[in-house]
Amino acid sequence: MPLCFLRRRCGRRLAADPVAALQYGKTNGYPPLIGLIRQRLKEKQHITCGENELLITTGSQQGLEMFAKILVNEGDTVLVEEPAFIGSLNAFRSAGAELIGVPMTAEGMDLEALDRLLTAHPETRFVYTISTSNNPTGISMPAEKRAAFYEIIKKHRVLAAEDDPYCELRFCGEIIPPIKSMDTCGQVVYFGSFSKILAPGLRVGYVCADASIIKQLSMAKQTADLQTPALPQMMIVNYVRNNDLDDHIRLLRDCYARKCGVMLEAINRYFPAGVTHTVPDGGLFLWCDLNNGVDTNEFIRAALSRQVAFVPGYAFMVDQSVKQSSLRLNFSALPAEKIAEGVQRLGSLLNG
Amino acid sequence: MPLCFLRRRCGRRLAADPVAALQYGKTNGYPPLIGLIRQRLKEKQHITCGENELLITTGSQQGLEMFAKILVNEGDTVLVEEPAFIGSLNAFRSAGAELIGVPMTAEGMDLEALDRLLTAHPETRFVYTISTSNNPTGISMPAEKRAAFYEIIKKHRVLAAEDDPYCELRFCGEIIPPIKSMDTCGQVVYFGSFSKILAPGLRVGYVCADASIIKQLSMAKQTADLQTPALPQMMIVNYVRNNDLDDHIRLLRDCYARKCGVMLEAINRYFPAGVTHTVPDGGLFLWCDLNNGVDTNEFIRAALSRQVAFVPGYAFMVDQSVKQSSLRLNFSALPAEKIAEGVQRLGSLLNG
Repeated sequence: MPLCFLRRRCGRRLAADPVAALQYGKTNGYPPLIGLIRQRLKEKQHITCGENELLITTGSQQGLEMFAKILVNEGDTVLVEEPAFIGSLNAFRSAGAELIGVPMTAEGMDLEALDRLLTAHPETRFVYTISTSNNPTGISMPAEKRAAFYEIIKKHRVLAAEDDPYCELRFCGEIIPPIKSMDTCGQVVYFGSFSKILAPGLRVGYVCADASIIKQLSMAKQTADLQTPALPQMMIVNYVRNNDLDDHIRLLRDCYARKCGVMLEAINRYFPAGVTHTVPDGGLFLWCDLNNGVDTNEFIRAALSRQVAFVPGYAFMVDQSVKQSSLRLNFSALPAEKIAEGVQRLGSLLNG
Repeated sequence: MPLCFLRRRCGRRLAADPVAALQYGKTNGYPPLIGLIRQRLKEKQHITCGENELLITTGSQQGLEMFAKILVNEGDTVLVEEPAFIGSLNAFRSAGAELIGVPMTAEGMDLEALDRLLTAHPETRFVYTISTSNNPTGISMPAEKRAAFYEIIKKHRVLAAEDDPYCELRFCGEIIPPIKSMDTCGQVVYFGSFSKILAPGLRVGYVCADASIIKQLSMAKQTADLQTPALPQMMIVNYVRNNDLDDHIRLLRDCYARKCGVMLEAINRYFPAGVTHTVPDGGLFLWCDLNNGVDTNEFIRAALSRQVAFVPGYAFMVDQSVKQSSLRLNFSALPAEKIAEGVQRLGSLLNG
């Protein structure tokens, strides 16, 4: 691509290093972005990440898929919190994993169940969790529970995959340091992302893990796409150097907190008394159970006919064939008045 | 990401559709780029590609890996021309393929050998070829041989993966329409790329194939990285709409033709008489055989000590444990005088 075009389109700052922008780059990522992420992990998440312990991925989805690919053989056991993010479940399934669900409590994964399941399945390859403002529930594992989680995986000598795209979007209380921040044995593989704090269309995520795991992931990445595209990585560096990212994140947090409040208020007003729901401390989602025996994969049709969408609960389950009366609602995408109206429409369907 | 930042960095044109640039987009690709590729495939390569027959990938490497993933189970047979591009071989290996090499002639794949191998291995999942200005040899399969190749895969009812990153970089003679242009049965899966005509750091490639295969690839892509990053796709559309891509490609072709000529002349002048080499009709590479029993994986050390690099022949082979006296030279990356000097240094090592 002619350099003058790059200059015209991206401005002098991004075009200042045309070789980095256009030529093949390093598989592990654009070095200034690697530096920036390592610094931010230290400052915000109390994670010490060595130079060889980071790999930039084409969204954290790619990190999760490659991690399953290097670790899982057909039929290997993987423990996942349940309900869990469908994209992760599908990445693990595509590597041939046999998934086993660990139930969720109001404070994240049920650790007694986790301990029991790891004893019953000593061959488990890894345990998957979104520890902060979980998708789909919006709730976080408290600090003391994170310590207990880490003790359990240490005891069983099993790896944990900690997926943390919402860590900076927690709007109730201070940041809780991730499980990775306690990891002295290299047993936690940490997945981060710019999708929720800057833009998902950039497709920039990262993995922080023991150097031996990063080395394997880097080999997998050479086969997958050689490197994450350079321009989105450079745009992030340019943005962070010339703007106040923390300020931008505060804006998002305040906005989502307000919208979540609107959704909770509308649920309390319009939904039937029997419906239970989580109270998110951050993130983008909350989780409802209609508790009325209705299959939400059927109910979705009625909702769509009223122009309201949600994700039916079955999608977040290990066994997708079981009918679920649960559903996931999103409070980040629409303006507050639309959120209230959507919940009201669902409520009138449920009451009708 | 704040819209004003996008505007400042990427200019009004790229920021004209901020939702497409920043939000999650379509898994199959940015619609204007899909339209542009379909039109170009028709005009330049005589390939008719339906709307559901195209998927944009994060470089064609991703297309090749996903294709192997959806088609190959552990131990399945895949036939590959030999020597062949190492990135493809590794993508197929990572899916568990058992590779079998089809020897190359001076006019591409040995079709008698192909026919024989397909008869001996009726379970073959697909046949892999770079039909035009092959990597590593730089030579192309002539038109009549392409027709014969297509008849053979039709007879054996086997899929072909036609990898075509250099199709527009052929500098001797007219464009030869790809095998895909004859494909009336949906048996050819065609991989294209912007890496060699615009920039590899953009990581934008594509697959053109039967709709049923694209559907499976699209599902694999959702697990792999959800979508190819939007900005590089938008930059390509913007470039093609506002510049003469054909003109730019003519420039590249002329430049590579000249550099290839310089390399051939230097080889004839400086290499020992026994060395044989291909005469590329395009692309970026040529292939030499020292024919002296020297293992080029050993010889590379002497070359590097003289500041000259090449890729040893073993890397392009199915069985990488066999010593090879062949090597691949690149003539696109360096200025002409450096090419001549590098060949001279290699020559003095070989003669010394």
